[in-house]
Amino acid sequence: MPSDTDTVEISSIADPLAIAQALIRCRSVTPEEGGALQYLADLLAGAGFEAEVVRFSEDGTEDVQNLYARIGAGPPHLTFAGHTDVVPPGEESRWRHPPFAAEVEDGTLYGRGAVDMKGAVACFAAAALDYLKANGTPAGTISLLITGDEEGVSINGTRKLLAWAKQRGETFDHALVGEPTNPDTLGDMIKIGRRGSLSGTITITGKQGHSAYPHLANNPVRGMAKVLESLFAEPLDTGTDVFDASTLEVTSVDVGNPAFNVIPAKASARFNVRFNDLHTAESLRARIDRRVEEALAGSGLAGQVDYVPNAAEAFRTEAGDIAELLSQTIEEETGRRPALSTTGGTSDARYIKDYCPVIEFGLVGQTMHQVDEHVAVADLGALTAIYRRFLDRYFDRFGG
Amino acid sequence: MPSDTDTVEISSIADPLAIAQALIRCRSVTPEEGGALQYLADLLAGAGFEAEVVRFSEDGTEDVQNLYARIGAGPPHLTFAGHTDVVPPGEESRWRHPPFAAEVEDGTLYGRGAVDMKGAVACFAAAALDYLKANGTPAGTISLLITGDEEGVSINGTRKLLAWAKQRGETFDHALVGEPTNPDTLGDMIKIGRRGSLSGTITITGKQGHSAYPHLANNPVRGMAKVLESLFAEPLDTGTDVFDASTLEVTSVDVGNPAFNVIPAKASARFNVRFNDLHTAESLRARIDRRVEEALAGSGLAGQVDYVPNAAEAFRTEAGDIAELLSQTIEEETGRRPALSTTGGTSDARYIKDYCPVIEFGLVGQTMHQVDEHVAVADLGALTAIYRRFLDRYFDRFGG
Ligand SMILES: [Zn+2]
Ligand SMILES: [Zn+2]
Repeated sequence: MPSDTDTVEISSIADPLAIAQALIRCRSVTPEEGGALQYLADLLAGAGFEAEVVRFSEDGTEDVQNLYARIGAGPPHLTFAGHTDVVPPGEESRWRHPPFAAEVEDGTLYGRGAVDMKGAVACFAAAALDYLKANGTPAGTISLLITGDEEGVSINGTRKLLAWAKQRGETFDHALVGEPTNPDTLGDMIKIGRRGSLSGTITITGKQGHSAYPHLANNPVRGMAKVLESLFAEPLDTGTDVFDASTLEVTSVDVGNPAFNVIPAKASARFNVRFNDLHTAESLRARIDRRVEEALAGSGLAGQVDYVPNAAEAFRTEAGDIAELLSQTIEEETGRRPALSTTGGTSDARYIKDYCPVIEFGLVGQTMHQVDEHVAVADLGALTAIYRRFLDRYFDRFGG
Repeated sequence: MPSDTDTVEISSIADPLAIAQALIRCRSVTPEEGGALQYLADLLAGAGFEAEVVRFSEDGTEDVQNLYARIGAGPPHLTFAGHTDVVPPGEESRWRHPPFAAEVEDGTLYGRGAVDMKGAVACFAAAALDYLKANGTPAGTISLLITGDEEGVSINGTRKLLAWAKQRGETFDHALVGEPTNPDTLGDMIKIGRRGSLSGTITITGKQGHSAYPHLANNPVRGMAKVLESLFAEPLDTGTDVFDASTLEVTSVDVGNPAFNVIPAKASARFNVRFNDLHTAESLRARIDRRVEEALAGSGLAGQVDYVPNAAEAFRTEAGDIAELLSQTIEEETGRRPALSTTGGTSDARYIKDYCPVIEFGLVGQTMHQVDEHVAVADLGALTAIYRRFLDRYFDRFGG
């Protein structure tokens, strides 16, 4: 145990705090690997895993490293998915403790990635190591899919790692994602799906001119006002039994015209839709295209919508059995019955759901992406215990 | 006559083409004097004018030179107002003839300022010189108010020159502004007033957040959509007997948020109103403030409108006699009866109207502010003849 870990009592199983600290001390701001994946590969290999660091690249994107580690063979195959990349720390001077120092103060571990999600990766690694120590090679397969490109464009991360693993003959029966899912307290919430996300840019082109002669021009801002009004006019839906209402936010409108008296030629707007499974990216694209077309009809203005590629579809995992198993485990460890939820942003679960049922459970997300991101050391212990007990339950339930 | 004036026939009176060429060859892009005012001062002084170049400045603005020249004494006092500064030429390589070369080709003079308005200044100077040669000192006063700051912020130009002249005891009975007033052909149009102009910036402040959690944020773009809709909703008026309908154009909307999934804290919009005398800048400010307030009511968003100082009020000159006199003169010279109009942008006439009745008549404006600005040499002769005949008529009509 490092000397700066204070006097916190760590459970007797493999030490998640030490692993979390080692990971946090790697400066793995996307797309930098920073030593984090290699550390993890060595740790797992030491316990008998076959661990491979795989590098993916694509024209116009940064090279990204990813880790696939597995132990055992055949079904049932439980894969744990996560990431070691982190968002930038921002102004380091604003942090109470340096963001990559992984210092512990009063039972709290500070550092970028503490909850999102080096902490949970450490907990699962500790749980798996302890499981292996107690049980030997599992009657099935345990694997870890750890990407270095979750916080970035996610092009060279989990999506490619899944395809790569499939091509190697890997088949997953269930996946557990370690993203921070708990709003307030460990045990609050399991994610059994996610809303989809669709982004795009609307460009309206008119005719430039002088504001003293508006009849000689065609102001695209006038069309933009109509388009915005139409997009905001009615809610997309009112939600479903497991999904919140879908939302559409226009997050930027831009003309960039410094002159008060010049009617511009062009106006653009960016938007993001978060949608439930009453919609698909395709149905929304059709709806937005139609709204823009209708709003501009007869105006002489031209409208165009460019959608950001790789929209995330909404999904609700068909994971009744495994969600129930994890819920029971959590209740046994924490005394809390977690809510089954689909709230929040997107995660790499959207890619995994095409391979096998996927659920998500990790730490408390309150400080993620913020200055002074931190996690209670006790939570690291408790999450490790949950994951550890879940491994037992999983192979009991699905094993031969 | 310069050697490059082609074979165009110039009227026998003082040569407006030579004066226009000399002025165009001065690089007097606002606020540079470029030698233009000094050339004009020397020319007029040579004909007996008292000519004074006056420099005005103000904190945060560039020094600007202006010219006041007068001859004669007492009423009636006709002042000619104009400017020798020009807008930048833009990409000089796109010009058929260099913008400051004042080259003549096929009876056309090319150069920045040819119509706006070194050409008209040259015509009036030529007309005045010829009038003096024929009549000696007038039975009243002829003066020229020529600024070097009309195309810029207009802070150190005509407005200050008028106040300076008043303080010296100058009283004007009538003013003639030489801005290009004719849409197509010399003789089309006299301006007897101008619409007002009011500009401002609307800033809406909400609460930043993530687009996956819009309930934790307050999107100012939502408020901006309402504000724009409200501003565009109904026309300000339908015009009057001499004024077109007032218009409001939103010329920029800006958020500048590069992230699709971040709800911004702030959105801003710039607008410009061109208004007739059914409104004042003050009544419009009250109307716009109220619209913004109403559109944001109950939204929790804060709205603020910052108006650009020095709004131009709409005015209609009380210039029946002199407008009629000029109309007759134009008809005699061109065979065309000019329309009396209030269309177009603002001009320095908005300052002069507080001192005396003011009318505007100059060249054909089609190429003003454009690449290849040019004027027909014949138009220079014709406008000089109009101004020359008008000086006769003016002192006949208003002289003792
Ligand atoms: Zn994450
Ligand atoms: Zn002008």
